[in-house]
Amino acid sequence: MRFSSRVDVSQPNPIAAAELAAKARGRSLVKLNDSNPTRHGLAPALVPSVYTADPRGPRAMRESLAAFLRARRGCGEDATADMRADAPANASAAAVSPDRLYVLSSTSEAYSWLIKLLCDAGDAVLAPKPGYPLIESIARLECVDAIEYQLRFDGSWTIDVAELAALLDGPDGERIRALVLINPNNPTGSYVKPSERERIVALCREHGIAIIADEVFYDYALEPFDGNARLAGERGVLTFALDGFSKMLAAPHAKVGWIEVSGPSADVAEAQRRLDVIADDYLPMSDIIADRFDALLDDAERQTARVRQRVLGNLALLHRLLAADEHGLVDVLRAEGGWNVLLRVPSVLDENDVVLSLIERHGVTGQPGYFFDMTSNGYLAISLLPESAQFERNVRAVLDTVDAMIDAMIA
Amino acid sequence: MRFSSRVDVSQPNPIAAAELAAKARGRSLVKLNDSNPTRHGLAPALVPSVYTADPRGPRAMRESLAAFLRARRGCGEDATADMRADAPANASAAAVSPDRLYVLSSTSEAYSWLIKLLCDAGDAVLAPKPGYPLIESIARLECVDAIEYQLRFDGSWTIDVAELAALLDGPDGERIRALVLINPNNPTGSYVKPSERERIVALCREHGIAIIADEVFYDYALEPFDGNARLAGERGVLTFALDGFSKMLAAPHAKVGWIEVSGPSADVAEAQRRLDVIADDYLPMSDIIADRFDALLDDAERQTARVRQRVLGNLALLHRLLAADEHGLVDVLRAEGGWNVLLRVPSVLDENDVVLSLIERHGVTGQPGYFFDMTSNGYLAISLLPESAQFERNVRAVLDTVDAMIDAMIA
Repeated sequence: MRFSSRVDVSQPNPIAAAELAAKARGRSLVKLNDSNPTRHGLAPALVPSVYTADPRGPRAMRESLAAFLRARRGCGEDATADMRADAPANASAAAVSPDRLYVLSSTSEAYSWLIKLLCDAGDAVLAPKPGYPLIESIARLECVDAIEYQLRFDGSWTIDVAELAALLDGPDGERIRALVLINPNNPTGSYVKPSERERIVALCREHGIAIIADEVFYDYALEPFDGNARLAGERGVLTFALDGFSKMLAAPHAKVGWIEVSGPSADVAEAQRRLDVIADDYLPMSDIIADRFDALLDDAERQTARVRQRVLGNLALLHRLLAADEHGLVDVLRAEGGWNVLLRVPSVLDENDVVLSLIERHGVTGQPGYFFDMTSNGYLAISLLPESAQFERNVRAVLDTVDAMIDAMIA
Repeated sequence: MRFSSRVDVSQPNPIAAAELAAKARGRSLVKLNDSNPTRHGLAPALVPSVYTADPRGPRAMRESLAAFLRARRGCGEDATADMRADAPANASAAAVSPDRLYVLSSTSEAYSWLIKLLCDAGDAVLAPKPGYPLIESIARLECVDAIEYQLRFDGSWTIDVAELAALLDGPDGERIRALVLINPNNPTGSYVKPSERERIVALCREHGIAIIADEVFYDYALEPFDGNARLAGERGVLTFALDGFSKMLAAPHAKVGWIEVSGPSADVAEAQRRLDVIADDYLPMSDIIADRFDALLDDAERQTARVRQRVLGNLALLHRLLAADEHGLVDVLRAEGGWNVLLRVPSVLDENDVVLSLIERHGVTGQPGYFFDMTSNGYLAISLLPESAQFERNVRAVLDTVDAMIDAMIA
């Protein structure tokens, strides 16, 4: 596995070495130059904790999170399972160690750190299309290119793994340092299938590139599951799984995200040695948030269930509204998970014009397919989050607009 | 003023243009694809606010902060003063508009954003030496070089402005995109003097480069002031002033920092247009912190006074201890501000050996001058933050170690 040259991992100087040796002997040293006021009785009363400045985030927070993730994966408390070389793949995915977690402000920040870890300027990451343009923007801010790989729709979405392989063997192959998988993807709502996953992990391992798996929508399945699994905990190749409170807790304003590192031990160790340097430069997690973390986590299951109910309710409503529509000009692509679905409007209409007309007629704006680099015209993303009355108004606004545009075209 | 090519500021597409036009007419649009659950009644009870996702940080937070900064600069409530072209320089520095503020997690994050804004890969920023290595590390993570400029000591520290000018006119001049000023610098404890400032602002304006002014230690003057002033609000050249709760409130664990943008209006407008894109990709500020912001701000004056008292008390104690030391082998460099001072030990001793010996004899570690790229041997940084008994032990450990090393050398 190759890492970027952005991170300084030069050997420790003699003082740092002596500090490490003292620590190894169990001797704690006083720091002559300690600039952390909270260690000298000076913290404000409103944030009275002693700041530990742990690059991976406060230890207590990571322990709570690891326990939560273990419970969610139904594996009880055996955090050591993934340390055993002979542990079965499923058990490894279920075990979560607090030492493999980095708690930070958002998945955006996680993308930024991981691109820094893996890519020099001019390198590239592979990102799914259709997909949200945020990854491309974040990569560009890191002087890195996002190269598209395609998801194809033929009743359901599949990753074009043959194209992925061709990209990795092609002229850009050398500069591709990571593969971004969104599981489930947005706005296509498609999970990474077991067969796709197997081939992708093998490809990445073969080419020495890491997987960045964004699984923030994972818990929002829109139809029964079919053997899908989280990438988090994948052991076949160096994998960074991203998740956070933004979707799980419907709390984008809490600003809590995390990275879980897994893969072959040597790669994980070297990745963490370097990621610790990056994390130590930013130290984004506030003790004010850490203090609320357990209470928020306790609310996660209820919040996920509440949002899932809303999303499933609106999806059923959408199907009813489309089925009842006498013109039948609009349908919805099958979506397996997430908060958004794609409406398909007649391709004789320019999707850009549909949105402009929606704004004009109903004061409703939207994002057509080209926002997500859909390869053909005629798509509109619609959120399943609004309260049902608002959601119904949104759908009816689309139906009315499309009807009117088709009428005008015929007339 | 030249900006980096990392930020995509291409023209808005027709839909974005129509949205802007609707907004300009006072028409608020419903978003078909709104994925913000807090706008749909789904926020968790523990963070019940509706998330506004403002790139500059929550509006209420920036208004409180602007009011605080205005009061601190003794200018009352006139936020419009810096909009008047004929406003005197002093008044401009005193006026603070919430629109010129970006609230984020830390000054580290601010450095990262500003380097992204100003520098392409391979570009460079000027950073003071002696200085902390953090800026170099953050710049490297952005594929940018930190080029040193020197502060010289002759009883007090001065910036070598002639060398600065030579650097800007030299072979690296073209790729230098920003000048970092730490005011007061750390660990030299030196403020930027009015005469230095005038020449530096003129140099930067002439070369079209921005100033990044890190003023986190500004309020911790260790001796009477001599006409110094904050760079924040500087109008002569595009200036980004950094500050935060880490030092002002002795709360590095609160994770609240900010950027204040000032300078010629056209440069400020273009910088903010681009900085908004960067900020919008990360949106680091949590509503959990925002909810506590006013209460924390109310505590700022008291906390700053409390820490100032500690620091001044320890500085006086240091002078007494050094004066009472019969060997007289250690003295302290004059420091004007901040939390750290530099001890000078006999230059016949290797400063690295002094720290190794300190660890061995007293279990005390430290950072010698070469950590900060001091140009000569024989310095040790010491923090003025510890409670006085601990501080005295730290000083006595240094005196004892130096005495023992000199004794051993003579024997």
